[in-house]
Formats: sequence, structure tokens, C-alpha cells
Amino acid sequence: MAVKTYREIHLINRPEGTPTDQDFAFVEKDIPSIKENELLLKTLYLSVDPYMRGRMRDVKSYVAPYKLNEPMNGGVLAEVLDSKSDRFQQGDIVTGTLNWGEYNIVQANAVQKVDPSIAPITTRLGVLGMTGLTAYFGLLDIGKPQAGETVVVSGAAGAVGSIVGQIAKLKGARAVGIAGSDEKVDYLVNELGFDAAVNYKKDSFEDDLKKAVADGVDVYFDNVGGPVSDAVILELNRNSRVVLCGTISSYNNPAEDLGPRIQWKFITTSSMMKGFTLGDYASELKTGAVEMAKWFQEGKLKYEETIIEGFDQTLEAFRGLFEGSNLGKQLVKVADPEIAKL
Amino acid sequence: MAVKTYREIHLINRPEGTPTDQDFAFVEKDIPSIKENELLLKTLYLSVDPYMRGRMRDVKSYVAPYKLNEPMNGGVLAEVLDSKSDRFQQGDIVTGTLNWGEYNIVQANAVQKVDPSIAPITTRLGVLGMTGLTAYFGLLDIGKPQAGETVVVSGAAGAVGSIVGQIAKLKGARAVGIAGSDEKVDYLVNELGFDAAVNYKKDSFEDDLKKAVADGVDVYFDNVGGPVSDAVILELNRNSRVVLCGTISSYNNPAEDLGPRIQWKFITTSSMMKGFTLGDYASELKTGAVEMAKWFQEGKLKYEETIIEGFDQTLEAFRGLFEGSNLGKQLVKVADPEIAKL
Repeated sequence: MAVKTYREIHLINRPEGTPTDQDFAFVEKDIPSIKENELLLKTLYLSVDPYMRGRMRDVKSYVAPYKLNEPMNGGVLAEVLDSKSDRFQQGDIVTGTLNWGEYNIVQANAVQKVDPSIAPITTRLGVLGMTGLTAYFGLLDIGKPQAGETVVVSGAAGAVGSIVGQIAKLKGARAVGIAGSDEKVDYLVNELGFDAAVNYKKDSFEDDLKKAVADGVDVYFDNVGGPVSDAVILELNRNSRVVLCGTISSYNNPAEDLGPRIQWKFITTSSMMKGFTLGDYASELKTGAVEMAKWFQEGKLKYEETIIEGFDQTLEAFRGLFEGSNLGKQLVKVADPEIAKL
Repeated sequence: MAVKTYREIHLINRPEGTPTDQDFAFVEKDIPSIKENELLLKTLYLSVDPYMRGRMRDVKSYVAPYKLNEPMNGGVLAEVLDSKSDRFQQGDIVTGTLNWGEYNIVQANAVQKVDPSIAPITTRLGVLGMTGLTAYFGLLDIGKPQAGETVVVSGAAGAVGSIVGQIAKLKGARAVGIAGSDEKVDYLVNELGFDAAVNYKKDSFEDDLKKAVADGVDVYFDNVGGPVSDAVILELNRNSRVVLCGTISSYNNPAEDLGPRIQWKFITTSSMMKGFTLGDYASELKTGAVEMAKWFQEGKLKYEETIIEGFDQTLEAFRGLFEGSNLGKQLVKVADPEIAKL
């Protein structure tokens, strides 16, 4: 190990609108020698996720805001380069919520071991990790899709949406995806087996949607908010359920997010909507992970990853989420492992 | 019975904005002789309710629209003047969904008998009728108030809202009312025992609301929609429940009802909102009616009625709902009974 320093990405301004390079700083740090029970981790992959935009604001929410002049953090896959814990050895692959840094020095209990023989390790940041479980609990606990019902998901080609549609199919429901390009629409229908998909960027979106949900909408899993959701809500059936996961359409919008009030539609259809975050299911995560792993092993869950190479590209990858440049899970590949053979 | 004719109120135009006299016609009809199993009913009181505005539109909803050139209908209390059914005799008091007419000729199974010895008969159109049960099921089944929680209700001095706050108190919750005058605010706190109430027509409304719900809002029972609800939603606590009963603020508004999108707040607080109408609880109405009657007999439910005299005043009474001119249940007294001694 000739490396003596590494870089971290710190938030230095609270962005207005789309985050720019000027809102962040690459900060160089020395690699310290680790103490008892600590691990030195080399980042292999890091996850960029839309919810991080919310944490860049200085407002109380379900997770604390990122602090200024401190590192960003999120889901990370890393290799243990040095360990002063009995539980880990050099070459182990681990995951946890870690700093956006080329290296992390952490307490051993801050990470969990990843078994590379079960599935490609990157699935632990996607279909078998936070985004897959978000799809699982939101759809099944709030949406409760029944066989024969129509489930619509927005952001359908993204990390969460692509899994939502597939779980809906596993439950015998009809899956209709909304995405932002004809390529994504093709992917949803032809690769993932959605029953229909529509491109919200087309002028014909509202008509296309109506045709795709001719029997109305029973479950709407909403990742995007904004005008796309306004259109879906007009198609809700009686006793429908709207699962609120994200409003990515407004995250970079500094103006107030105005639209038609929706309460009347929920009254006239006796429908329900509920927001959630994965933290609501902290005590049930293991159950979900077991069922998701089972479906995955059985080949019932397909997934896609969009991987940008290079720690320098992290901000570009993050901004790409809001332009829909990702198919499936957006990851940044930071480095190859030094010891582990994957 | 010298009377040979009676009047009905027919809808003749679908109103734009506030319904005018020109949207309705008083139509004179002959009183026919009744046939086997029919009743001739004399209307004593009729109920005017905000939901009726929705039925004046020609749109699919949870109840069919009123038909043009046919009588309006709704909750009515009437006296049996003539009966060709074994189940009813002259002088019986009955209630049902009947035409807005000075008389009704109906099949015997269209009405239920009202026992005037249990409670004033008008309670069957309010606290012990549809509006009381709407408060009961919406608050208890959707809102699920827990002891110590804060329940906010808009339209709090109306027929539904005034009961919602009192049931919240019976469940050990803190009740906060929103109403449109200082007199109503006084009534809620000093007569009905609400813990606090605020006047939404004051410039200080948003500040007043924040003070009244210093610990946030756990349950919001919404009768009004619009900017009042926008303000309440900003104060929602984690895991709060919003009960959608009505959006009276927009019923007479011909323009699109625009406002801030609210999905983000439901996500960051894992909150839920659900619309309903009393029809959702058709199979449980009896259970609710029994518990409401018990509370009423125990003196735990106070109620107020605003009674306008004269069938001619029906449209004025209906329009008054949207100006907040009613305290509690708005009724029209059409006639005194001819036979029954109440």
C-alpha cells in the first residue's frame, strides 16, 4: 500500500436547484493507522440515490440533513484492506452507509459482510439492498396488489420502479410502467415483462396512459410526483392505494411545487395514499431480504445497473438521476478490489 | 285534507359556480291517491348538505348525479298522512332519502320509522343520522385517534365537524377546531369543549394554527380542502392520518382547484390520507348508530341545529352552507305535523 492519502466529497453549499460542482469539494485526507476494532476500507462502488437531494437541504426530515463541510454519505461497497477486528479480515467485502470517500475508516460494527458467492456484490446496493427493499415494502405493505389489479409505477425504469413492476407481476397483478424514453418503455415491456409502459415525455402521454390503464388504476407506486402523478391520480379506481416513495420531479425545483389539489379524487373513490421510507420497516428488513433473495435466486427478479467509472464522476452520476440517464440502479465504480477475487 | 297539490324543487340547469334560483324550478304536482303498499308523506324537515353540490354536476362519482328536470332529493323527516302498508299508520314519523317536495308518495320500504320518544326527531337528520355517522366512521376507522394525540378538524362548527371534535375528546385526544368566525370559535371551545379553535378568516390564521397545534397534528379530519388544508398538512406529525370527508371550499369554484402538491410531506412523515363516504360503511351502520345513540343518551354529544323555516327557503339554506351561515346541522322546516304530537 503505497497510497498515503485519499479523497472525500464534502458538501460545501446547500444547492439551489440542480447541484453544481461548486456545491461540493474534493478534500484530500491522510490515511491514518487504524485502532483497535477499526477497519480500513477501500471503496469499490458507491450508490447515488434521489433521496440524497433532500438531505442536501437544511430542513428537518426523516433523515438528518447532510452537514456542510463534512463528507456526503450513502450506500457503499468496500473491501477490507486492514482490520483490527476479529470479525473481518483483509479481502472481505462489506457494505454499509459510509462516506463518499475513496477510503473509509470505520468501527467494525458499522458494516456488514457481503458474500460474493451468492450474487454479484453490486446487487447489495440495488435489487438485494435498499432500493429493492424499498420496492418490496412499499408495494406489498401499502399498495397490497391483488391478482388481476392494475399497478402503475412511475420512474419505472429506475432502481426502485423496475423492481416494483416485477413484484406486482409476481403477485398476479397487471404492471404498467411510466418512464422517460422509448428505449426505457421497450426495456420495461420486452425485458422485464411489464404489461404496458408509456413515455411521459410524449405529447400523447395522457392519452397513452388512459389506454394503458383502460380498467383504471388500483395501485399507484409513485417515485416522481408532479404532472405525471396528477395524470395517474385522475385514473384511480374505487378503493385504490397510492404508495408515495419519491417526488423526483420536484427535488431540484427551487420554486413551490404547485398542481391540482387531489383530495376530491380520493373522496369520490374512497382511495388512500401513504408515504413511507424504508426506515419504517426497520424491524422487518430481514424478512423482506430473505424473500427478495429467494425470488432473485429463482430468476424471478431481473435488474439492470448503470455504472459510471471513477470517483471523479460521482457528482455527474448523481445529477444524471434527475435527467433519467440511468437504467436501473445507478452506481459509481470507484476502484477494483486489491485482494478479493470477485 | 283540503290540499290537492304540492310543490317539488327540480334541478333544471347544472350550476356554474354558486347555484342560483334560476338553476331550479318549483314544480306543482297533484297529490295522487296512493296504491297498495304506498305511503303519502308530508315533509316536516329536510336536510341540505354540501355533498349535494357534487351531485349537481354531470360527472361520475360515488353517487349518481341529480337528473335534470327531476326533483332534488336528500334526507327528509316526514309524517305519514295516509298509509296502504301494514307497517305504518297515520301520524308515524319516518325518515329516508326522499324528494325535495312538500309531499312524497313512496313505497313503504323506502323509509324507516323514527321513534320521537328517544330524541328530538331532527337528530335523525344530524347527530344521530348521516352526518353524525360520517363523523363517527371517518374519525374512528380512518383517523384512529389515540389518547394524547392532537386531532384537527376543519369545518369544525358544521354538522360533521362538531361531532368529530367531540368523539376525539371521548377517545382522550386533544381536539382543535378550524371555523370561519370568532363566534364559532367561542362555541367550539366554550360549548363543545374543544381544546382550542382558530378562525381561518383571520390574517393570523397560519400563526394561530401553529400555536394551537404546538405538538403537531396526528389526525386531520378535513371537511373543507383548499388553503386551510394546505396549512394543516404542513403541521403533520410522523405517522399521521388525514381523513378526507369534503372539500367544500372548492365545490362552487368553476376554476381548477390549484395548490401546493402535498406528496412530499406525506413521504417525509410517513403519513396517510384516505377519502371516504358513508356508503363505505353500509354494513356497519347499525353498530355505529348504536354507539352514537349511547353517547347521546349519556349526554356526551352536544349538537346544534340551524333551522330555516319554509320550503321556499330551501335554496337559500343550501347556499348558506357555502357561506358558513350554519352552526351545526342546517335544516329546513317545511311544515308542522298534522297528526303526531311531538
